[in-house]
Amino acid sequence: MRVAVVGASGYTGLELLRILLRHPRVALAAVTSEQRAGRLVGEAFPALAGLTDLRFEAADPGALAGRADLVFTALPHATSAPAVRDLRKAGVPVVDLSADFRLRDPAAYRRAYGEHGAPDLFGLAVYGLPELHREALRGADFVAAPGCYPTSVLLPLAPFLREGLVETDAILVDAKSGVSGAGRKLEAGYLFAEMDGNVLAYQVGGVHRHVSEMQEQASLAAGGDVRLAFVPHLLPTTRGIATSVFTRPRARLTTARARAVLAKAYAGEPFVRVLPEGVTPSLAAVRGSNFCDVTAVVDEPTGALVLLSALDNLGKGASGQAVQCMNLMQGFAETDGLLEAPLVP
Amino acid sequence: MRVAVVGASGYTGLELLRILLRHPRVALAAVTSEQRAGRLVGEAFPALAGLTDLRFEAADPGALAGRADLVFTALPHATSAPAVRDLRKAGVPVVDLSADFRLRDPAAYRRAYGEHGAPDLFGLAVYGLPELHREALRGADFVAAPGCYPTSVLLPLAPFLREGLVETDAILVDAKSGVSGAGRKLEAGYLFAEMDGNVLAYQVGGVHRHVSEMQEQASLAAGGDVRLAFVPHLLPTTRGIATSVFTRPRARLTTARARAVLAKAYAGEPFVRVLPEGVTPSLAAVRGSNFCDVTAVVDEPTGALVLLSALDNLGKGASGQAVQCMNLMQGFAETDGLLEAPLVP
Amino acid sequence: MRVAVVGASGYTGLELLRILLRHPRVALAAVTSEQRAGRLVGEAFPALAGLTDLRFEAADPGALAGRADLVFTALPHATSAPAVRDLRKAGVPVVDLSADFRLRDPAAYRRAYGEHGAPDLFGLAVYGLPELHREALRGADFVAAPGCYPTSVLLPLAPFLREGLVETDAILVDAKSGVSGAGRKLEAGYLFAEMDGNVLAYQVGGVHRHVSEMQEQASLAAGGDVRLAFVPHLLPTTRGIATSVFTRPRARLTTARARAVLAKAYAGEPFVRVLPEGVTPSLAAVRGSNFCDVTAVVDEPTGALVLLSALDNLGKGASGQAVQCMNLMQGFAETDGLLEAPLVP
Amino acid sequence: MRVAVVGASGYTGLELLRILLRHPRVALAAVTSEQRAGRLVGEAFPALAGLTDLRFEAADPGALAGRADLVFTALPHATSAPAVRDLRKAGVPVVDLSADFRLRDPAAYRRAYGEHGAPDLFGLAVYGLPELHREALRGADFVAAPGCYPTSVLLPLAPFLREGLVETDAILVDAKSGVSGAGRKLEAGYLFAEMDGNVLAYQVGGVHRHVSEMQEQASLAAGGDVRLAFVPHLLPTTRGIATSVFTRPRARLTTARARAVLAKAYAGEPFVRVLPEGVTPSLAAVRGSNFCDVTAVVDEPTGALVLLSALDNLGKGASGQAVQCMNLMQGFAETDGLLEAPLVP
Repeated sequence: MRVAVVGASGYTGLELLRILLRHPRVALAAVTSEQRAGRLVGEAFPALAGLTDLRFEAADPGALAGRADLVFTALPHATSAPAVRDLRKAGVPVVDLSADFRLRDPAAYRRAYGEHGAPDLFGLAVYGLPELHREALRGADFVAAPGCYPTSVLLPLAPFLREGLVETDAILVDAKSGVSGAGRKLEAGYLFAEMDGNVLAYQVGGVHRHVSEMQEQASLAAGGDVRLAFVPHLLPTTRGIATSVFTRPRARLTTARARAVLAKAYAGEPFVRVLPEGVTPSLAAVRGSNFCDVTAVVDEPTGALVLLSALDNLGKGASGQAVQCMNLMQGFAETDGLLEAPLVP
Repeated sequence: MRVAVVGASGYTGLELLRILLRHPRVALAAVTSEQRAGRLVGEAFPALAGLTDLRFEAADPGALAGRADLVFTALPHATSAPAVRDLRKAGVPVVDLSADFRLRDPAAYRRAYGEHGAPDLFGLAVYGLPELHREALRGADFVAAPGCYPTSVLLPLAPFLREGLVETDAILVDAKSGVSGAGRKLEAGYLFAEMDGNVLAYQVGGVHRHVSEMQEQASLAAGGDVRLAFVPHLLPTTRGIATSVFTRPRARLTTARARAVLAKAYAGEPFVRVLPEGVTPSLAAVRGSNFCDVTAVVDEPTGALVLLSALDNLGKGASGQAVQCMNLMQGFAETDGLLEAPLVP
Repeated sequence: MRVAVVGASGYTGLELLRILLRHPRVALAAVTSEQRAGRLVGEAFPALAGLTDLRFEAADPGALAGRADLVFTALPHATSAPAVRDLRKAGVPVVDLSADFRLRDPAAYRRAYGEHGAPDLFGLAVYGLPELHREALRGADFVAAPGCYPTSVLLPLAPFLREGLVETDAILVDAKSGVSGAGRKLEAGYLFAEMDGNVLAYQVGGVHRHVSEMQEQASLAAGGDVRLAFVPHLLPTTRGIATSVFTRPRARLTTARARAVLAKAYAGEPFVRVLPEGVTPSLAAVRGSNFCDVTAVVDEPTGALVLLSALDNLGKGASGQAVQCMNLMQGFAETDGLLEAPLVP
Repeated sequence: MRVAVVGASGYTGLELLRILLRHPRVALAAVTSEQRAGRLVGEAFPALAGLTDLRFEAADPGALAGRADLVFTALPHATSAPAVRDLRKAGVPVVDLSADFRLRDPAAYRRAYGEHGAPDLFGLAVYGLPELHREALRGADFVAAPGCYPTSVLLPLAPFLREGLVETDAILVDAKSGVSGAGRKLEAGYLFAEMDGNVLAYQVGGVHRHVSEMQEQASLAAGGDVRLAFVPHLLPTTRGIATSVFTRPRARLTTARARAVLAKAYAGEPFVRVLPEGVTPSLAAVRGSNFCDVTAVVDEPTGALVLLSALDNLGKGASGQAVQCMNLMQGFAETDGLLEAPLVP
């Protein structure tokens, strides 16, 4: 199958290339990049020299229609919507990695991102979290890959919401992300000399754009309104998100019971690993992979249920997950191209 | 004034040296180290060459009595208690940086650390958090410097507990520490290749030894029982602790009101900086210093009160704070030797 | 084909697993580890959970003979030799990653490593640098995979030695290695808090054990005695070796001519990438891969020829190269299992 | 004494503030910054809150004349020259940290930096390396603080040049710098995600702007023409330069003899530490300090003399050295404000 990547020179775009180049069922037909159009991939990114002869093209979604059987769009939000519309109009299946098609509530989109660039398509994409929406993804032709933070929150949390085990009025989330989550953005705060050895929270108080996405999906899982306090942090590492979710159980819960909930929910899942008791999720254990590691612990003094997760924000948090979606859309084995071992150490 | 440091070759010991060497009111009279006894400080630690002619001695607390007017003990817990007893017996003022004298409940000590090495002295030290116990510290001659995590939790939290503004049955703490918090311990998990780019939680569920200390001091501030869920993490940085404290306000609270509580509590405090709105605590802004930066934000969706802090675990989290205590004990200016600017960048 | 890894729980062993698990032509039949014998691989290393059902066994090279068609030995030097002897006696092809069979001069081995554990086999292994010894490797059944530093030096240097273009009495090498090069050794100097932000040279003056290996192989390439000054450094990164080689050309050389020498030497090589002019080798561009990037620049003021290289010490510097050797030994495509893209970013 | 810092919001400017705030003999009278004019220092840089009430001003060198007894200019090259001219015209002593007044050969300046902004002052500043030019610095009123790389090269090398012990036609330098050496420049290559775990050489072949400066000063020390091949690298650390200098002794040299040369040259120097045999310079041992650690080793196989140094590029490589110069200019103790211990760990 021929696939194309629109916006292939950003960090999620490059990670898509890295995965698709080894994928046994697809051939990369085209990669686009406004800034690097005309340059060989291996010349613009010496890391990829010797692995592909592709050349970046200027994005022209219409022109891709005849050349690719599926397109990944890895553009910034707002930029993505019109490109997706062109592709959908031409009948091409799309996996969009931007935030443009993740939400169902147009007002929430407007508050977080402003005017939408393709309102006619709003709400039509399947939310691309296979562990929650697998059946809808099979054979789908329009998928919105979830945000990195929402994936790290929803995977450990959803099973407890579905079973109605925890209070939903104030779920407290403390999340920590590697700097690649900001992309290749030229802001002083992302310079090496500023982030080396540094950790800081940002966008505290409910203002982070991922809050609506998390609340929408969590509410779907709970079958009712879920409210989250979300405190994201930047970490002095490139890849990875480590998340703590604090919840109040509706009835007394033990660690064993909580772990059983996770174990049941993810039995047979190839990419969600419920860790053995005493082992905590660790960024190093998922680096470069499509795994999300989760665990649950009930805190002795307070009875709070603490859920922990770790994933690679560019892998299961973005491009790996997008490829997992493609596998489902196309009827490939869900693990095709994705069972690469993490980079250890 | 002549001071000595017992256990001067560990990370907190070395940080004490760094501060005391520039302190305008003291002279370093002796430094001890079992492992490095007999070696010049500047030879054992080339970083300190050219700054002192001191030689590490084997620890003999009794013998220090005549040579130092105050002694810092920077030994591991359990090892510290007998050394402190010898020094106290000889009438020497002591600032102990171990966990041996921080608690008031002997059962809590036993659960966390085992048998106590000097039960006759248990409970006699002043808890060395100047912002909470300044008056008791003035002129004191036996002080237990607080743990790094408890300092990072208590400073933002105590004002809200004192004013009865938050629920106390389940305060949720997510804390992240640099690897120097583990000292120079030879465990595989602390190797560079294991921690580079890594983040992981550890001792989740109420089992971390600092929980009792935090709960005791928080309960003192609240005037009643306080329960904390504590989730500590290791960070891929050497110095610093960044802490999030999630609380439920008893009555609706605004960010402005919450910030006013902090501002009032810390007006005039030289080392607790209440950050301007929109600025979050950052490890880089406190690196190498005695500052603890704090802020408060009320989360929109949930109404939760989020408190954030950052400090250097070796500075305000240990050795800087110990020197601040000494300054109070001796009637020096509280800031003597401690107003060094953080290392930026 | 069934392969086994002896000493599979060290860093090079784990990297072998990572590569062999994706290799299209082999099945992992057994992995051994003294320390972790009896434990599931995915339990001992949660990063590998879900990727293999193998269990570590105690090493018993004899017993592996019937179960594996080729064995990688990834043991420390001296420990390796007897294990290799057992395997060779049983007729099993071996790729040894230790230093035990890299040298040809027994006196040099003795000076660097002490008594040899299998003197009867000394000198019998093919030196596993495919770009220099490809023909000897095809069909070989006993290969010594080169050291990480020697690979980084020989690849850029050998073409100039072979053509007699540079003086050979004093080739000056400044090399910088990530900390994983030291393995999982429990020494204070390898702790995160010691190496974070740190860089230092070590074993300066000709005492590093890789000097003999480099000089032997360089002399072979030159057809005469080559002398190297070698200054290795530790870097605050986990993976990667960046090397500068300073040579004096025998006759005036231009950058263009020097680059042509490299281009000719490595035309068609899948894993040695001669970088375009103006691009320098970079650890990030080879992270996790089997590439070695090289370039050559003639210095204007002095006429010195500067050769630069970058590789991943666990990839082309160890386990990737070992698998490349296996591919040649077995007649597989040389790139099988090895064309994975580097981890970017 | 009242001092001012022009360009105080860059990394070298901030480091000047950090040092001057603790300096016992000076008061900070004014700090300028184009970008941050009007903002409180502690508001623009929360790290400095609580340490100074100063407010950044727009730079107006003329207006500073009456308010400061000495001015540090920490501006980019070319921008600095006109500011310095204004200050000098007003009779104010100046320590310039830019490259504008370091060279003596106007053609070399033009080649490296373009047209000079104050040709009338070119060549008039004393080169501010106290260990080489102390007498000229005493009482001077115009000083050009050396570059970070040249300091790291000249300190270990000059004693051997002065004594005529090494060949001068091809001294080979391999230098590695922390990313703060690039300042707060917004280029993709300096982003955390690009430099994390990365090392790469840049400006190889004699094109780095510091080559002229090094060759000029080395030639002065040697009393004749000195040629250097210079290969700078970027390191994944914020602060520090580690440098290797490879030289060919004119006559056979031993390590002991080489070390004696350094020991003699730097006996009594407070900031150049000749390390004991077996100890190599390490960035961690100089972090945040004004020390430059040096050593010398003769390589066994080749007889090459290897000189190694480590310094903090913002300390002895820039701002610390500038303050050391000020101390000499003003007749203060040379170590005033500069004997702070390095940040360990």
